[in-house]
Amino acid sequence: MKRFCLTVAYDGTKYHGWQVQEGTPLTIEGVLNNALSGLLNEPIEVIGASRTDAGVHALGNLAVFDSNTTIPGERLLFAINPLLPDDIRVVDSREVDADFHPRHGEFRKRYEYRILNTPFPDPTRRLYSWHVDYKLDIDRMQEACDCLIGEHDFKAFCASGSQALTTVRTIYKADVTVKGDEIVFGIEGNGFLYNMVRIIAGTLVDIGRGRLEPACISAAIESGDRTKVGQTAPACGLVLIGYSLQKSN
Amino acid sequence: MKRFCLTVAYDGTKYHGWQVQEGTPLTIEGVLNNALSGLLNEPIEVIGASRTDAGVHALGNLAVFDSNTTIPGERLLFAINPLLPDDIRVVDSREVDADFHPRHGEFRKRYEYRILNTPFPDPTRRLYSWHVDYKLDIDRMQEACDCLIGEHDFKAFCASGSQALTTVRTIYKADVTVKGDEIVFGIEGNGFLYNMVRIIAGTLVDIGRGRLEPACISAAIESGDRTKVGQTAPACGLVLIGYSLQKSN
Repeated sequence: MKRFCLTVAYDGTKYHGWQVQEGTPLTIEGVLNNALSGLLNEPIEVIGASRTDAGVHALGNLAVFDSNTTIPGERLLFAINPLLPDDIRVVDSREVDADFHPRHGEFRKRYEYRILNTPFPDPTRRLYSWHVDYKLDIDRMQEACDCLIGEHDFKAFCASGSQALTTVRTIYKADVTVKGDEIVFGIEGNGFLYNMVRIIAGTLVDIGRGRLEPACISAAIESGDRTKVGQTAPACGLVLIGYSLQKSN
Repeated sequence: MKRFCLTVAYDGTKYHGWQVQEGTPLTIEGVLNNALSGLLNEPIEVIGASRTDAGVHALGNLAVFDSNTTIPGERLLFAINPLLPDDIRVVDSREVDADFHPRHGEFRKRYEYRILNTPFPDPTRRLYSWHVDYKLDIDRMQEACDCLIGEHDFKAFCASGSQALTTVRTIYKADVTVKGDEIVFGIEGNGFLYNMVRIIAGTLVDIGRGRLEPACISAAIESGDRTKVGQTAPACGLVLIGYSLQKSN
């Protein structure tokens, strides 16, 4: 028995998120399980690194599974891609250590949240960004980002329904970058709570348009009070960029 | 009776192109006609500036129509947008001269063709770019672009089925720009033949990967021979950026 790790990119638009659910909604995990089980002729159930929500996209989620296949790890992606719909693509595959687990151990994870900051929405970007027509103050947003850095209790940034054992997370990097008519919020940490990146993104927009102060981030971290922060930004603007084992910088 | 001009942006993915067709396929023009007729309570048939193909996108196509409405031209977009699906958006509206026609007169028209030049496709960009995994030589592609500039007979770059009276067009600008992992081919001219931009884009990729020489563009212009140029690039990579009345530079 060997263990394999796939790096998976997907357009989350039409999926009910990553995780297989009761009933038969379409999920990324479900599609991968079916395709792999068919290819390898054994029942496969992948373990995902990140259980992304409905409508959230990924360039580098991880899916780990065990198999007796003789296909070399680095060739697996060429075998599996033709069996997947074109909104899911395996972009890397490899054999990993038998004890490798995508949710244990110290990963550094990067998300990006894309805001289309124009007077009118752009139909060709509506599925991959949040259209915000208010003028946003980037300096205020960056000032708020700076307060996120470090190990903090992010309870205030967690939607109800979370099953996390602890709400303490470490954020290594958080920044706001203007790219043409888009504002991209990037954040890297050792893990994120349920809806955490979307709540931060929504709060940053409220700060950028002047409805909240940058200091509300620190106040929310200290108090753990969800009401101190802003709205939850829509799923479509969020992309899980990827994972790395490197922790710092 | 007043004449109005709408600037229309759309995601062409699920449409059978701009133009209303026999039978009932979904078209941009058809959706606009329905929405406008409902809003203005009179039968409206718009005239489009560019009859884009199935799957082609636009940020600035033009739709012109006559109406007795008392809604001021610049307010029309706010009235019509709520009646449109979210993959079509009117981004500008105004009253124009009674003799304004979006296909007569001298316009300068800009298209962009986007090539995603990566080893693996990106599911989140599959609907808006052509994935090409070959290494492409940008200098060769730009050299080929330079041969397009000026007034030429572009018969060799026209798919069969065209109803154009003349195949002579003037190209003001044509360039290839690297934007991250995308290669964007931009072209501006006074008009384009059926499939012309997609045939040029396909030819540029063949030139970039070394299958054709940059000089094939000039040879094709001189000979009018369609077999001297390359493949037709897929519709999804093409976006009609917009129109302007300004002719030069």
